[in-house]
Formats: sequence, structure tokens, C-alpha cells
Amino acid sequence: MRHLLTLEELDRAALTRLLDRAERFRSGGAPRELLAGRTVLTLFFEPSTRTRTSFVLASKRLGADTLNFDLSHSSTSKGESLLDTLHTLEAMGLDALVVRHGENGMPAYLAQHANTRVSVINAGDGTHAHPTQGLLDALTIRQRRRDLENLHVVICGDIRHSRVARSDVRALHTLGVRDIRLCAPGAMLPESPAEFPGCATTEDFDDAVQGADVVIMLRIQKERMAAAQFPEAADYHTHYGLDTRRLALAKPECQVLHPGPINRGIEIAPEVADGRQSRILDQVANGVAVRMAVLAELLAPPA
Amino acid sequence: MRHLLTLEELDRAALTRLLDRAERFRSGGAPRELLAGRTVLTLFFEPSTRTRTSFVLASKRLGADTLNFDLSHSSTSKGESLLDTLHTLEAMGLDALVVRHGENGMPAYLAQHANTRVSVINAGDGTHAHPTQGLLDALTIRQRRRDLENLHVVICGDIRHSRVARSDVRALHTLGVRDIRLCAPGAMLPESPAEFPGCATTEDFDDAVQGADVVIMLRIQKERMAAAQFPEAADYHTHYGLDTRRLALAKPECQVLHPGPINRGIEIAPEVADGRQSRILDQVANGVAVRMAVLAELLAPPA
Amino acid sequence: MRHLLTLEELDRAALTRLLDRAERFRSGGAPRELLAGRTVLTLFFEPSTRTRTSFVLASKRLGADTLNFDLSHSSTSKGESLLDTLHTLEAMGLDALVVRHGENGMPAYLAQHANTRVSVINAGDGTHAHPTQGLLDALTIRQRRRDLENLHVVICGDIRHSRVARSDVRALHTLGVRDIRLCAPGAMLPESPAEFPGCATTEDFDDAVQGADVVIMLRIQKERMAAAQFPEAADYHTHYGLDTRRLALAKPECQVLHPGPINRGIEIAPEVADGRQSRILDQVANGVAVRMAVLAELLAPPA
Repeated sequence: MRHLLTLEELDRAALTRLLDRAERFRSGGAPRELLAGRTVLTLFFEPSTRTRTSFVLASKRLGADTLNFDLSHSSTSKGESLLDTLHTLEAMGLDALVVRHGENGMPAYLAQHANTRVSVINAGDGTHAHPTQGLLDALTIRQRRRDLENLHVVICGDIRHSRVARSDVRALHTLGVRDIRLCAPGAMLPESPAEFPGCATTEDFDDAVQGADVVIMLRIQKERMAAAQFPEAADYHTHYGLDTRRLALAKPECQVLHPGPINRGIEIAPEVADGRQSRILDQVANGVAVRMAVLAELLAPPA
Repeated sequence: MRHLLTLEELDRAALTRLLDRAERFRSGGAPRELLAGRTVLTLFFEPSTRTRTSFVLASKRLGADTLNFDLSHSSTSKGESLLDTLHTLEAMGLDALVVRHGENGMPAYLAQHANTRVSVINAGDGTHAHPTQGLLDALTIRQRRRDLENLHVVICGDIRHSRVARSDVRALHTLGVRDIRLCAPGAMLPESPAEFPGCATTEDFDDAVQGADVVIMLRIQKERMAAAQFPEAADYHTHYGLDTRRLALAKPECQVLHPGPINRGIEIAPEVADGRQSRILDQVANGVAVRMAVLAELLAPPA
Repeated sequence: MRHLLTLEELDRAALTRLLDRAERFRSGGAPRELLAGRTVLTLFFEPSTRTRTSFVLASKRLGADTLNFDLSHSSTSKGESLLDTLHTLEAMGLDALVVRHGENGMPAYLAQHANTRVSVINAGDGTHAHPTQGLLDALTIRQRRRDLENLHVVICGDIRHSRVARSDVRALHTLGVRDIRLCAPGAMLPESPAEFPGCATTEDFDDAVQGADVVIMLRIQKERMAAAQFPEAADYHTHYGLDTRRLALAKPECQVLHPGPINRGIEIAPEVADGRQSRILDQVANGVAVRMAVLAELLAPPA
């Protein structure tokens, strides 16, 4: 394993090994010298303090040096091509590039053109994939439920444009989850069912959430709400927000996940976000651990 | 001591212990491993390279990892609430948040809502408090004068809006200084004397500076000068600038302080800023040492 | 050697020692603790991710702490003078300032006014000097050719405004290179031959490149092309671009250098930039090594 571009590359054994390693890191077993002398660069073409900070902390906790490429000041503003930037960074001897880009496939494109042993980690590309989010969500769910085969999982929000939904579905399928329901207004459901093989889709959130073990809420964007005929945030909340009434339809121990940052009162009610079933802050903590596991796997594979 | 929000929380013994620790750090006794593996995040909602850099250097010199939250790229731009940002950072396992905010009380608000053992350090909030500045000014004065009870201290500038003045007065009172005179044009004096109990106020700078042991000049802002009937910087300088003539009215060994950055020729004449009585660069050096002491006290209290 | 401002300060022995040290660092002999506890600050008044990143990596690989001064958020925006910023940074105990500035002589001005043992490293000032670029270009050329006295070197591009050309010429002359030809359209040639003593100048690139051992291409700016009567990039490329036809006029082992970032299809054809004679990525790798050597020389001189 040299790059982490999508979760399609990982079979159940590989994915489980990563999650197990992350779990050990969470319990405090981080070897502070594991990546000493290695350099991790975050290369973000879209703003995201949360994910970037998570990768930076993961790197530092394993002893790696970190660099953040501030693209507003970068050579790309002088018109340098992305591949020239890649080769320049490789020549400087970097070990890993953590890339977020608005276009699908850009991390894969960089990985494909890398000349050296540099590892490319996809930190989210367009609507395509966000593999470390898929991993951390799987880790979060697994911490409470080992019998993943029997889980009923609902993902609700802008499925069509969500790289989180894609990577979550992939991680959960690989781990054996069979019952995944995608819920959204029509304009936010997948254009083709083939995009999410093996998943059910529905526009009825009350129905979807019945008896659920896990509900993953997605962050919603205002522009998209309008396009889906919800000009007011309150309207979206009425139909697709997770509030206490709706959560009561799920199983009593149903876990609530959200990749953050949350829009309180839009896709999720504050009482649910802050409630006892919320795993949102566990996701954040697991995010650092999962990224440590990925960096360790790529840069310091077990002998 | 878990947070540092204002100097009101520190009695004379606690404050003296911090200054003593800072003094030892200045003389080179910084244990580079004291905060190894700990993470300090600077969270600045107002720009300040000087104070931020001072905290970052203090952290690094004790071996801590540092992160700077660049708020223009942060999740807050996606509408995340400040408390959600706080809880996210806590979940990532940060040890200290160094917060500067334009509104009074924001660091206290964050400290009050923190779920975990994270320490909040106030790096300046509105017109309310700037505790590390109060500490470093006290340390600077104390390096030359041990008999603080007998000092005559003048603070001159925009007292009304100054968090520096408030924290300086608090630190000096706690250490036993009895004679503090606040000097400014009327529109910059405190609205109520109760805000600065035990301090004299005057609009006559020549009178205030007579026989002074310490003069603390405050940075003045152009908008405020106009509001105080000084449309031209030269007018302000004439009445409230510290020049060599005025400094000669003070005691021969009178110390001159300024929190920086200075406006040369406005609140302070270049000859004074660069003169033998200026302690301005000592303040900068003491600032790093004081912040090391605060971080050490909060994150690695003596057993 | 306390500062590195221009290469004029270095005689052949000193320059050779630096290159030898850089060569050792490239082969992996970087002592990770050499600069432990030292602090290097990059102070860039012009954007340059490439050079800044190179200095930051060089510092980290020797164990130094690094700080980047983001000038858009700095006190200079509050009107602080450059010298006050310098003295503030000195008081904070920094060991080296890596300065890039648009005006000639600014690093020297800072070095001249430094009060303490801080080292100033010029990372490019105006059209004046870019000493580490001169060093890394010399190192790159020397890796393939030891008999520098017999080299025929061509530098092509906007010589008049190029600090790279000035520092390259200086480095190569010091190392014994005798045949340097400067090639550009008239408006980009030196205003006076005295600026580049000992160099030939020509407007005919085909002629200049005949039998060359080294061709150094300079990055060209669009505004400058227009001023030199090349309103279209294609016109410039026709006359002053390095393509395979022109490169074939040089010696078969002729090395092609470019400081980057390159403008593909303007001053250099993609086939040449990516071809077997291109040393562009070697320059990048050498850049980190040379900056490590400079930092080591200034902050940890051999006993």
C-alpha cells in the first residue's frame, strides 16, 4: 500500500488492520518517534481547517515534520502546473502529500504521475471520495457494535454530491454491512442507482429511520437546498432534519454521526447533536487516530 | 490553576511564583522536554503577529507542538459556532488554546464551556484583559526595582479602551504598587473611576510624569485620536507624547514601557523609544519568558 | 561569516566549503540535532512558496524550529517600521532571519541594523542578489563537471532584472568559470556591461548556445515580454525559448537549468524541461541541501 486514494483499494483484512491500528493509537499507544525525520505536506485546494488540522496533529503525534501549502501564496498563482508543483515537492524529499481538491480524481492523477516513493493521501476530492472519513466513521460505529453484518444504517442528506456518503458506503460494505438506506429529496439522491450498488434509496426520512442502528447525517449546503425546492432552511429541517421525534423512531441505542461542521437546526437539531446518542465528537477524536494509522501504514509499514 | 483568563485570579504569591519562573526561563533554564507531546493552538480572531509569535516561541522552547488556527480559512467561515469549534478542538486532544478575540469575555466563555482538561489562555479580549501583558510588564519593572510598594507609575494613552492598562493595573496592585496615575485626554479616561479603583486620573501629562519611576505608554489608534479632539497626530504628540523634555520631569532612572508596536512620533518620540531608559525590547524578551511560565504552570504544574 | 547577503562575500575556498558541505547533506549525512533549539524565521515580503519551503525544510532537517511571518497579518500592517520589527524579532531570541524583499539591499539594511547575533540570510532582494540560488546552481553544474574553468555557460532571459543571473555569474566566476554569455532581447540585456564584468552579451540565442556546456534559462514575466517587443508569448519562444532544435546546437551533454517555476512553452519547451539534459529537479533537491549548508555554516560553524 503506497497511496490512499479510495477505499476501493482496501479489502476487509486491510481495512480491519487499519482500524485496529487506529484503535491502538486512540488508547494512547502512539510511538512518538515512528515518523521522525519524515515530512508530511498538506496541499489543500479547498479550505478545510478541520481535516487539515486532523492530519497535521496525526503527523506530529508520530513525530513527523509538517508543512502546509498555502495555495493563495503558492507558485500555482504564478501559473505553475500542478504536475510541476508535484515534481518540485518530490525533489524536495517529501514523504507524503495530503491532497484535497475540488475536482474528482486529482489525488489519483498526482499519485499516477509521482516519480518517487512519495505517498499521496486523498483528503477529499470533489464528489468522489474521502477515504479517511469513511475509515473514521467505520471505526466510530465499530466501537459500539461488533456485529456489523446486522446493522441497519441510514445516510441522510445531499447523497448525490457527497464524497463522504460514497466512502462511508464503501467502508461499511467492505466490513459486511448489508442494509444501507440513502435518504434525501429527489434532487439529492444518486442520479443512477449504480453509483451506490446494494443501497436502498428513499425520500421518506421517517420511514428510513425506523429501527435504524446508525444514522449518518450529511452537512447540507444552502445553494443545494434551494435547488431541491427547500428555499428555507426550516423547510429542509422539517423534512430531512434529525430531531428527537425522528430519532425516537430508530433503535434506542441508535448512533448519530455527522462529519462536521454541523449546521445546527438545519440537518440536525441541537438536542440531537449534543445528545447522548451523538458520536460527533468521537468521530473527531477517531479522525486523528485513523489518520495516524494511515500515515503509519504508508510511511512505516510493519516489517 | 487551569486557565489564565484575567489576573484577578492570581494572588500575590501565585503571581510572584509565575514571575520567578519566568525569570529562571530568561536566564536560560528552559527544559526543552517539559511539554513534549503536548499541543498548543493559537486561536486568534484579531490579527497580532507579535503576541502570537511570542506564544508560539514559548511553546516550542518547552518542546510543545504548536498549531495556528488561521480563521480566514476556518470552519467558522462555514458558519460553525464558536462552541462547536471549541469542542472539535478538544476532541482532537489539544492541551491549550491561546485565544485572542475582539469581544470581552470570549476566552472566559470558552473556558466555561470546555468539556475536558484543555487550558484556555487569554491573549487579549476586547477592552477587558491581557493578562500575559500585565505579567510581562510587572516582570520588566521588577527586574530593576524590588521595592514595588514605593513606585510611582504613570500609564498614559487610551486608558478607556485599553486591556493592557487594565491588566497592568491589576498586576501592579497585586504586587503592592500603590501610586498609579492614569493620564489621557478626557475622552480616553475611564468612564467611571470604579473601573480602576485606587488609581488617580489626570489630563495633564506634564504633571503626572513628575517624579515618576515608571511610565507605560499605550499605543494610540488614529480613529480614537480624532474622537478625542486630536485630528492631527502632531497635536496628540504635543499633549500626550513622551519626548525627552517630558521624560526629564520623571526620576533619572525612570523606566519607559510600551506594549508595542510603537507609533514613533505619536505617543512616543523616537529618542525615547530608542533611549537608555526604554525597556521596550526587554518587554519583548520577557514576554516569551512569561508565556513559557504560564504554559509550564498550566500544562506541567510543579509536583 | 555571520550573514549571507551576496556571494561577493565568499571567496573560492569559502564557496567551495559550502558546496562540499551541501553535497554531504545531499548524500544523507544530515545531523538532525545540529540546530536543535535554534529558531529560523522566514520573513517574506514577496510571495514564494518554493524558496520559502526549501528554507523551512532545510531548517527542520537540521532540527531547528521554524516560524513563518505572514506579512499580511503582521504588525507592519499596523504601521510598524521594518527596523522595529527586526528588533522585536531579535528580542524574541531568533537565530536566523531568512528575508525576501522586493527592494534591493533590504536584507543588508536589516543585517546592518541588527543588534544581536542574529544571522540575516538573503532569500532574494529586488534585482540585486539571490545568493542561495547562485550556490545551488553552482552545485548542480559541479555535480556533472569538475573542470569549471573550461565551461561555456549561457544565461538566457531577462538578465537586466534578474537577481538569479547576478548571483549565478558571481558564483561561477568565483569558481573559475571564464566563458559566460548573457543572451536576451536588447531591452532585457544589462543597461551597462559593467554590471556583469567579464561576460559577453548577445541578442542571438542560436549563436550563444553553440557549443554550450550549460544553459541557464530564466523565468520570464509577461509584462516584460511586451516591453521587449514580444507582445505574444509565442514570439518570445521563437526567439528566446529553449527547444530541442536549439539545444542540439549545444554540446551533447549540455546541462539545462532553470530556477523555476517554469513557463512551459514560453522560455522553455516542455520536451526540454522534461528531457534527459534537464537538471531542473536536481536544482530543487540541491536547493534544500545548499540551504542546510548555509544554515549550518551560520548557526553552527565547524569548531
